[in-house]
Amino acid sequence: MSADEHDRLAALYGPLTQDVRDLIEAVLDTDADPASLDAAREAIRTAADALRRRQRDPTQTVRYAVGGRPVVWNNAAIGLRNAVAPPLTIQHGDDGSSCWSEFTLGAAYEGPPGWVHGGVCALVLDHVLGEAASAGLTKPLFTGTLTLRFVRGTPLGRLRAEAAVERTEGVKSFVSGHLSDTDGVTVEAEGIFITPAWARVGE
Amino acid sequence: MSADEHDRLAALYGPLTQDVRDLIEAVLDTDADPASLDAAREAIRTAADALRRRQRDPTQTVRYAVGGRPVVWNNAAIGLRNAVAPPLTIQHGDDGSSCWSEFTLGAAYEGPPGWVHGGVCALVLDHVLGEAASAGLTKPLFTGTLTLRFVRGTPLGRLRAEAAVERTEGVKSFVSGHLSDTDGVTVEAEGIFITPAWARVGE
Repeated sequence: MSADEHDRLAALYGPLTQDVRDLIEAVLDTDADPASLDAAREAIRTAADALRRRQRDPTQTVRYAVGGRPVVWNNAAIGLRNAVAPPLTIQHGDDGSSCWSEFTLGAAYEGPPGWVHGGVCALVLDHVLGEAASAGLTKPLFTGTLTLRFVRGTPLGRLRAEAAVERTEGVKSFVSGHLSDTDGVTVEAEGIFITPAWARVGE
Repeated sequence: MSADEHDRLAALYGPLTQDVRDLIEAVLDTDADPASLDAAREAIRTAADALRRRQRDPTQTVRYAVGGRPVVWNNAAIGLRNAVAPPLTIQHGDDGSSCWSEFTLGAAYEGPPGWVHGGVCALVLDHVLGEAASAGLTKPLFTGTLTLRFVRGTPLGRLRAEAAVERTEGVKSFVSGHLSDTDGVTVEAEGIFITPAWARVGE
């Protein structure tokens, strides 16, 4: 897939997915009467039917790439077509072993009222540490362990996550990172990422 | 809120939220032409507008309870009104310190193609361990640390998560649990949960 084709598809599916994210928030906050709820359900099913009229070939397992990086539509953290994803936009450092992301988490990511669900903090950090370890998903790696230390509550709103590879020992990469709001770090993370046996060179 | 009122609202909002989950999956898989995408977007915005016509009072901070347990509409793991949540339905053991959940994760929870995102595994385990530690969210607790060991990949599909309190030392509860598919454990988790200072008795 060329960069132009990628941009074309992102422009086609990005706004649609954002409309679904807006709908998710509207469901959280609605106090509509039953008739309005029924009307909304009908409109939602109409939309889903229109989308299902032509579907991607589910047996097609080709993975497209732009500039060597996989194109991820579905991914639960960064997928441009996935309304479950915030989505995170990952920025990579020039060193190829660090990255960061700035993003907003709204009510759909809530745990305790007003605060980000601790598990959503874990989701974000797992993803960002994995991106740092794999140089933007270009190296095959799997997560071995992930340790999170919750320093304080993470408020809903504007947040930043960052991660960097600390060192590499054989097939293991040791990565650390954190989640922060404007007042500083809220959750610290350490991860060990492992190169799978099939991708080990010279062993 | 009475149990009857809770059931009435769950019947009102549960199917609506499930329709939104179906829509999320339709967006992931669609190959519809631009005109159908535009029609879908218009229907989605119509639905959101109908829902926004009357909204819950955002300043209302009262937390309803059924049988002493908080009612969680928004929660990113279990919220009945939150299409981002799978949602998990948590079953509690009679001992008051263990729980489990059986659930299905579809394409919206994907990381590597065909596999659950590692961060979604972390989200599920954070939540289930927290439920065990807090006796179903009835005790005030916050997560101190969470450690995850990824034993192997977790396939999309039917899964089970479970957790139990191992021991309590002063204000700390030590909880362990795991995620599994039909072939056994895929991710192991250990967490330390801490009673906040304001809830400590006799200190």
